[in-house]
Amino acid sequence: MEFKEVHLKSRPKGVPVADDFDIVSVDLPEPAPGQVLLRNVWMSVDPYMRGQMRFAPEGSAIGGGAIGEVVASAHDDFKEGDFVEHHQGWREGALSDGRGLRKVDPDLAPLSAYLGVLGMPGLTAYGGLLRTGEYKDGEVVFVSAASGAVGSVVGQIARIRGGVAIGSAGSDAKVTALKDEFGFHHAFNYKTAEPLAALREASPEGIDIYFENVGGPQLEAALEAMKMWGRIPICGMISNYNDQGEPSPGPRNLTSTIYKHVCLRGFVVTEFEDMRSDFVNDVSGWIKSGELKYHETVLEGIDNAPNAFIGLFTGANDGKMLVKLA
Amino acid sequence: MEFKEVHLKSRPKGVPVADDFDIVSVDLPEPAPGQVLLRNVWMSVDPYMRGQMRFAPEGSAIGGGAIGEVVASAHDDFKEGDFVEHHQGWREGALSDGRGLRKVDPDLAPLSAYLGVLGMPGLTAYGGLLRTGEYKDGEVVFVSAASGAVGSVVGQIARIRGGVAIGSAGSDAKVTALKDEFGFHHAFNYKTAEPLAALREASPEGIDIYFENVGGPQLEAALEAMKMWGRIPICGMISNYNDQGEPSPGPRNLTSTIYKHVCLRGFVVTEFEDMRSDFVNDVSGWIKSGELKYHETVLEGIDNAPNAFIGLFTGANDGKMLVKLA
Repeated sequence: MEFKEVHLKSRPKGVPVADDFDIVSVDLPEPAPGQVLLRNVWMSVDPYMRGQMRFAPEGSAIGGGAIGEVVASAHDDFKEGDFVEHHQGWREGALSDGRGLRKVDPDLAPLSAYLGVLGMPGLTAYGGLLRTGEYKDGEVVFVSAASGAVGSVVGQIARIRGGVAIGSAGSDAKVTALKDEFGFHHAFNYKTAEPLAALREASPEGIDIYFENVGGPQLEAALEAMKMWGRIPICGMISNYNDQGEPSPGPRNLTSTIYKHVCLRGFVVTEFEDMRSDFVNDVSGWIKSGELKYHETVLEGIDNAPNAFIGLFTGANDGKMLVKLA
Repeated sequence: MEFKEVHLKSRPKGVPVADDFDIVSVDLPEPAPGQVLLRNVWMSVDPYMRGQMRFAPEGSAIGGGAIGEVVASAHDDFKEGDFVEHHQGWREGALSDGRGLRKVDPDLAPLSAYLGVLGMPGLTAYGGLLRTGEYKDGEVVFVSAASGAVGSVVGQIARIRGGVAIGSAGSDAKVTALKDEFGFHHAFNYKTAEPLAALREASPEGIDIYFENVGGPQLEAALEAMKMWGRIPICGMISNYNDQGEPSPGPRNLTSTIYKHVCLRGFVVTEFEDMRSDFVNDVSGWIKSGELKYHETVLEGIDNAPNAFIGLFTGANDGKMLVKLA
């Protein structure tokens, strides 16, 4: 069968551009014994992929989360019509030996949710806040990129568990959504408000946790506003991902971590695999009860995959950025 | 009785200078009921005091660790001739109501050791490495300001417990002492060697812990050399303490904490009060067995206290910097 896929033509310099990518047609054979043939229905684009593109081989298909339908199977565990979450995204179709495939239930939640609120970004938020951030019910949590796929879940979990949720985003429309739809207690536009002043106004006594997605001036402001024994789970620093040549300097006030006993800790979602069943139970329950909302920005067709990815760095997404493939 | 003490004349701007301090004579009365009169025999100068001088009231005596002899007592718990560790340093004599006094045994160790290897700097090293740094026997530990009162103990504990000790210092003489006297496996002069190259040479597979005393380029190099799941206990950042106006930028590679799961954690020695008896047992045992050495730089007389303190920032000390008062 003929499928299109996206290849990395050349490693991006700075903010990725369409010309860094190639759309290529491939012909996939029927599955050999032990294989399945997948037709992808959804694929994910995520900020972490920018980091991988510093090292990924040029001229080959990119990896990433996707939801595929089994269209032909020679594997005992999968049958035609099954839906699976897997890592051969950025392409319309893929052959798999079954490793890394996880069946998903289209009746429990819309398929796209398994790439967002019930998938990698959701688990990132859940584990990063509760384990890495050592969140205790009732604490004050600030999250940047708060209307994104990870950030919106972080703030909502804090709020659902009795805490105060403060979020920042890059447009007034997103700030409104944070307050009106996601139920953040406070939100500000980091492009027009001074972050430290906004934090002081939102919580004069300081913050317990800063869930770090962006780096730059917001990290510095968060360190300044941190309470004693505060924690900074470092999920991402998207403001630095497109640095070229001289990388951006770090915060000038790291010394404040000493007398405030503050901990900064980098993490990756793979640390939280053991939390997955609690995560799915909790989050699907909160979705069902209406306590937790999610947004998606959907572009259609594999040809739009590079645009969707590039849009992550220009703030084009509202919530999880997805590409619908079939 | 007449005693001299050091007052903060004006808060230092940048590196402290002699003129920031005043030497003042005071007349202390006989102790009232519940009080003791102390004659200090040793006083400590430590880098953390620079931070306090940003906020300390001008025109009054500075605080800090000291060893005093009880010369008159109207307090049930203390008698003439007792030696105590306490916090009214920077002066020849002090009245105390007994709070914060800890008796020390001059037969167990030289009195000055209670301000160094068996005192605050020693406990800082012990708790910072073992608790904050979560040191596991056999790990690779890099410590900056390694010939100082804290750093020299950090490296030696790592070595005694089967690990690899790497230290940096600011002169070739100190580097020689690190290797020949303190038993560090590797040491380099950060003024003449490129820190990352030195770390790569010392431990091509990377480091597990960076015990942070200085900030600046060495922190950036340590982040770069960090193994997966590495830890950075932040004890101090002496290179930034004298910043004026624009503070020094932080490391440009904090993003590397994410995929390496690295944790940076600030701490203060007061966190480790519950470890004190283990600390004293362990360290006094290692001193006795000859496994752990310590150096002292001693200046004589209260008039030299400002010079001793200023010397901390010019690298004038070799090991613990002390002022002998009587």
